[in-house]
Formats: sequence, structure tokens, C-alpha cells
Amino acid sequence: MNANSVDRLGSATPADVLRLIRAGHARTRGDLQRLTGMARSTVAQRIDALTEHGLVVTGQDSVSSGGRPSSTLLFNHRAGLVLSADCGATHTRTAVFDLGLNVVAEEVSDLNIADGPVAVLNWLAARFTELLMTAGDEAHRLLAIGIGLPGPVEHATGKPVAPPIMPGWDGFDVPHYLQQTFPVPVLVDNDVNLMGLGEAAIAYPHVSPLAFVKVGTGIGCGIITGGRVFHGAHGAAGDIGHIRVTDHHDVVCWCGNVGCLEAVAGGKALVANLHESGARTNSDVVDRVLAGDAAAVRAVRNAGREIGGVLAGLVSTINPAVIVLGGQIADAGQYLLAGVRETIYARSLPLGTRDLEVTRSRLADRAGITGAAMMTTEHVLAADSIDALVGAVR
Amino acid sequence: MNANSVDRLGSATPADVLRLIRAGHARTRGDLQRLTGMARSTVAQRIDALTEHGLVVTGQDSVSSGGRPSSTLLFNHRAGLVLSADCGATHTRTAVFDLGLNVVAEEVSDLNIADGPVAVLNWLAARFTELLMTAGDEAHRLLAIGIGLPGPVEHATGKPVAPPIMPGWDGFDVPHYLQQTFPVPVLVDNDVNLMGLGEAAIAYPHVSPLAFVKVGTGIGCGIITGGRVFHGAHGAAGDIGHIRVTDHHDVVCWCGNVGCLEAVAGGKALVANLHESGARTNSDVVDRVLAGDAAAVRAVRNAGREIGGVLAGLVSTINPAVIVLGGQIADAGQYLLAGVRETIYARSLPLGTRDLEVTRSRLADRAGITGAAMMTTEHVLAADSIDALVGAVR
Repeated sequence: MNANSVDRLGSATPADVLRLIRAGHARTRGDLQRLTGMARSTVAQRIDALTEHGLVVTGQDSVSSGGRPSSTLLFNHRAGLVLSADCGATHTRTAVFDLGLNVVAEEVSDLNIADGPVAVLNWLAARFTELLMTAGDEAHRLLAIGIGLPGPVEHATGKPVAPPIMPGWDGFDVPHYLQQTFPVPVLVDNDVNLMGLGEAAIAYPHVSPLAFVKVGTGIGCGIITGGRVFHGAHGAAGDIGHIRVTDHHDVVCWCGNVGCLEAVAGGKALVANLHESGARTNSDVVDRVLAGDAAAVRAVRNAGREIGGVLAGLVSTINPAVIVLGGQIADAGQYLLAGVRETIYARSLPLGTRDLEVTRSRLADRAGITGAAMMTTEHVLAADSIDALVGAVR
Repeated sequence: MNANSVDRLGSATPADVLRLIRAGHARTRGDLQRLTGMARSTVAQRIDALTEHGLVVTGQDSVSSGGRPSSTLLFNHRAGLVLSADCGATHTRTAVFDLGLNVVAEEVSDLNIADGPVAVLNWLAARFTELLMTAGDEAHRLLAIGIGLPGPVEHATGKPVAPPIMPGWDGFDVPHYLQQTFPVPVLVDNDVNLMGLGEAAIAYPHVSPLAFVKVGTGIGCGIITGGRVFHGAHGAAGDIGHIRVTDHHDVVCWCGNVGCLEAVAGGKALVANLHESGARTNSDVVDRVLAGDAAAVRAVRNAGREIGGVLAGLVSTINPAVIVLGGQIADAGQYLLAGVRETIYARSLPLGTRDLEVTRSRLADRAGITGAAMMTTEHVLAADSIDALVGAVR
């Protein structure tokens, strides 16, 4: 079934009708009759059901082509709210979004993920409750929660799987714990996957595959194909930080291997590299690069080259249309990007890089929270959810 | 929509009904009424339409639960035929399949792909005509053609894109050329993608992602997710033969780069490696390994290690559930596999290899032709095709 038609032999469900209205393909009852082939009365039934649940509102159409004005059908973004959190190692961004991905309230807080799931999720529940209060009367319209965590997550269950920087989280049932406070669906995914999802949804809606590479303390990648996260068999797809890098057999990684990309080119390695000049954090590294410190520029550019070497392999493997760089070290801008591009173009076959775009994240530090909201509103607006909400209408 | 129900608000199309019968979910008209919620008369209409086009046949059900016996509905595999070809560098396998992936006729011939598209496709058209003759009266039921070619193919158009071992084929409109002889849909894809598709369909129907790695003269990979080929942006996904291998900066590849996997561990490299002992072909290499020649065993095992190094990167990137080794060099069996496994397990994070299966192709040299037939029957039996064939029935 393509985007602007429905199964020509069946009648359209309320979810089908909502999809046509959301996408802008149907603006009037007449549009719906034409696109679905349903009778006027059936279309009216569907609209009534969607209106009753606040999902569709009608307005007067000012541009009428003669005859009596037909009312315009509009998707009501404020029919529901979702809560989102993008949890990093030491900071967490929380937000309330409406169903049109508009921010109702948002903030960034210090939060140490290593404090463990109970402390972190209790804090998150309290934060969510406060955020919801800012939504006033609409708070009861909460429909779902979406969370990004900085480690591998089994997407189907929402449980982290042996996440290296998250002691105590392995196998913890995040959805179950939060549902004790909020009895709504809770979706969890890896933070980098959600950064990719957010970037793809907002900046590259018709491009596939997209690879979002986060260069922070560690290095990870989220792969988005056809608007969805590519999880692989166990949610480990995109875990490129431990691919071995040429010529660095002497660098020991925390994972127990040697020569891992992350150990050679991640923020931690850059900080260590620039330790003598006083660098202690990723921000210090970026500040030095932006100030024109030659050693820092060289270190970041070399890191870019190593990352580009691994991404050349990714180009040969999944043939992405766009590679987006994000994460704190990406704030170093053109220097990192230049190194990355240099090696990707040097080592890839022409077909793989023919139309490849290698660029910085446009959403930057809001990519993750946007992706979390995207995952969550998509779930809420999925055909099954809408048809269940609105009920069987014949 | 899941496999054993249909949209509960719409009426099922003929394609929906055929799908339920093919999958074995519906064996009687009663099953269809129950699963689709359609009236007895509507079900009868759909069955009549499908029967009229020979897609469904009815038989008497011997296991009746009292009352009058209900007739069993069966998908008629012989309602149509498809032609398939799996073209390698020097050999081509051609076949006629029915819609149930049963072989009607099949054979292997010498054919040099480097003879160019006109010579090769003329030969193929003649071969196809002869094969169809063996199908006798059924020849007129030809519904589509599927072809695998040993190079990158733009799947949407069926045109090869700068294929290295196929001079003259770049951009050639393969479907258009063959349609001058056979006025049916012609689908074309890369041979390794189709090997993956065949292996996934027959040996791993419920496993995803699957990576099929062909180790022949060159090295390539077909990635199958959810039963479909993962093509990437331009059909270059899986082109892993030119990923740079650690520590081999001195090996020059035909692609103009150094240290490519294919140049280090492909059949051509193995033949060169064993040239002094008289090896001239991939088969010579395999024969020596199977005869226990120590130099050959060592060379193949080392090639396996190098391939495993690149596959460790693929494991980190797409997190496959299964990696299948095929191609001529895979006939060397456990020696290649042992080397591949050694490096994959040494260099991957535990989550990526937790349940990973690394194994030899079960379909072996029939994987490609099976995948070509699979691609083609899937196209013929897709909802759009069936509904168009049977016509709009309300």
C-alpha cells in the first residue's frame, strides 16, 4: 500500500483515514471519498470516530471552489502527549512533546547513569511528573514514554544488555519499572539509534540508509533504513566503536581487545593525548581545537582519519546515502569531518561514495531527544494503536 | 497486518485470500470467513476469481468433522512459471521454476560473462526458449524472469553499475533487452544478493539479518533482512571485498587500492600463493586442501582469518544472526570456516556473537538460482500483482 492510496478492495480503517489527513493527502471529506473509494456515510463515520477522540479537528476552508464551503480536516497534534528522555553518561535531557513533535517543555539536567537504574529511573519519574505539570490540563493526555540509554538495549523488551558504562542496568526491566508510575507504553532504545532516528526524521526524511555516528567519550553508530532503526539480531547493530583499526595493536581497550576504534579515536583517547597541555574533558579538547591549538587540531584530525577508516568499511557494508557526525567531539567541526572524509573517500569503491553525503548533525544535541519523541509518537500513531484506541468501526 | 489475519475493518482482497491459502492458514471457505470476517458470498467471489485464474484448486477434504465434507482449498503451484538464471564469471545456471519454487528444468552451462551483454543475453534468451519447451503446454504460463549477475546492479532498473568483471555491461538495460523476446517482468540483482536470498528463504526462513559471504575469485556479501535483500542507497551494500585488511598495505588490488580483502584472501590470491605447487584455478586450491596439502591448508586458513577480520566489522555493524559462507573456496570446508570463526570471535563484542551462527551454505551452488527464482515468484505473488491479475472484485 503506498502513501496516498489505500487498499482499493477493502474499506479504510480509522488509522488509514488519519494517515491520509496527517500526510496532507486528504484535506476534505471529498478527498477521502476519492482516495479510499468509501461511501460518503462511511467516511463520515470514520471522521466522527476520530473527532470524538480528539485526533481530528475540522475548520472552515477559506479557499472554496464555489458551492458551499467544505470543512477542512486537520490532524490535532495536541490530542496526546509523550514524555521523552535522552540519557547520556552524565547529562539527561527530558521533554514533553505533542503528537506533531512540537516541544511542550524541555530541559537538561546533570544525571549520572552509573548511579544505577533505581536511582536514575526514580529521578526520571519525578522529573517527568514535574514536566507533565507544566502541560496543565493536558497532562492526562499522556500516551507513551520514550527513553534513550547510552548502551545496547534489547529493543523488544526495553532491557539494557551488558551496557559497559551502566553498572547495575544489565537486564533491568526499564518499561516495567516506569509503568508503576505511568501506566502507558514505555519504549527504550540505544541513545545513538535515537539520534539517528531524530536526524533522519527531521533533516533527511526521504533518504535511506542513514548512519549517525556519535563521537563522544566512546564511539557508536545508529543505522536508519526506511525511517526505522536497524537493530540487527540483538540490538547490537551500529556498535562500531570496537572494530579494530589498522596499525594500532598496541592500544588496549577497556573491552579487553586491542586497537579498537574507540580506544584510538574516542574522546577519552583524545583527552589522554592532550593531557600534558591540560585537557581533562571532551569540551577541553574541542575548545583547544576551536582556539587553533596545533596539537589538538592534529589529534582530532587524526582521530577523524581513523574513524573514516572504519566508516569506509561501513560504506562498503551498508552503502549509506548519508553519514551524519554528532556527539561532543563533532563540535570540533571541520577538522574532524575533514579527517573522516579523507579516509572514507580514499578507501571506498566509487559506487559507494558516488552520491554519499558526509556531514555534521543539524539537530546536534537535540537529535537524541527528538528521536526518542519520534519513536514514541510513531508507536502511538501506528495503525494498530489508532484502531484500538478508536475502536472497531464498520 | 500479520500473517494470519487481515485488516479487520476492510474486506480481504484476492491477494489476501491467496496469501492465507498459500501459508496454510486457510484450508476451507469456513476458515476464510472466520479469518477475514467476510460474508460467505464474498468469500465465494474471491475463490471463484482465484480459481478462474488457476491460482487456487479445490479438492475433497477426507477428514471431515461430520456433516457434508467441505472442499479443501489449495494453492496451485503450477498456475505459472518463472525463468531464472544465475550468471557467474564463466558458468551460468538456468532454470524453470513453478510458483512453489519447484524446479521444472535446470542446467549448468559454460558462459563467459565478459563476452558482453548482447552475446550473453542472446544466448540466455535461446537457452530460456529451449527450457520453456520442456515445460510443454505450460510454456505460455511464463509470468516473469529473474537474473543474477556477478557485479553491482541498480535493482530498481535492472542495470549493472560499473561491474568490474563485466566489460560492456555498465548501464545496459537488461530487462528491456530480454523483454524483446519475453514480454514479462524481468528482475535483475547481484548474484551474491540472490545467493543470500535463496539461502535465507530455504534454510533460514525466520532468521534475520543473514549475511551470505561468497568466497570465489573475488569476495562479496549479500545481506538479507526480514526476507528481503538489503541493497543500500545504490545497490552497493555487501561489497566487502575492498574493505582494507590490517597489515597488508603492500598488496595491490585491481581496484587501485592496497590491502583490499579480495586481493589478500580471494581465490585469485590463493591461486597465486600456491602457483609454485601447480595451482591454476580455485578448484585446484580446494583439491589441494582436501588432499591435505599443508601449504594449501595454511593458505586457506589464513585467508579465512583475514575474511573473519572483515566479518568482525560486519558483525559490529549489522549484528547478523547468521553468517553463511559460499562460493568455490568454501568447498575447502572446515579449514576456511575455522579461520573465519577464529577472527570473528576474537574481535567482536560478546553481544554481537552471543547467538551468532557461522556456517557453510546448505544450498551451495544452487543458492543463487534459488534466490533468483525466489525474487521472481515473490514479485509475481505480491499483492499488487495478484490483485491486478485477478482484477478488481467487490
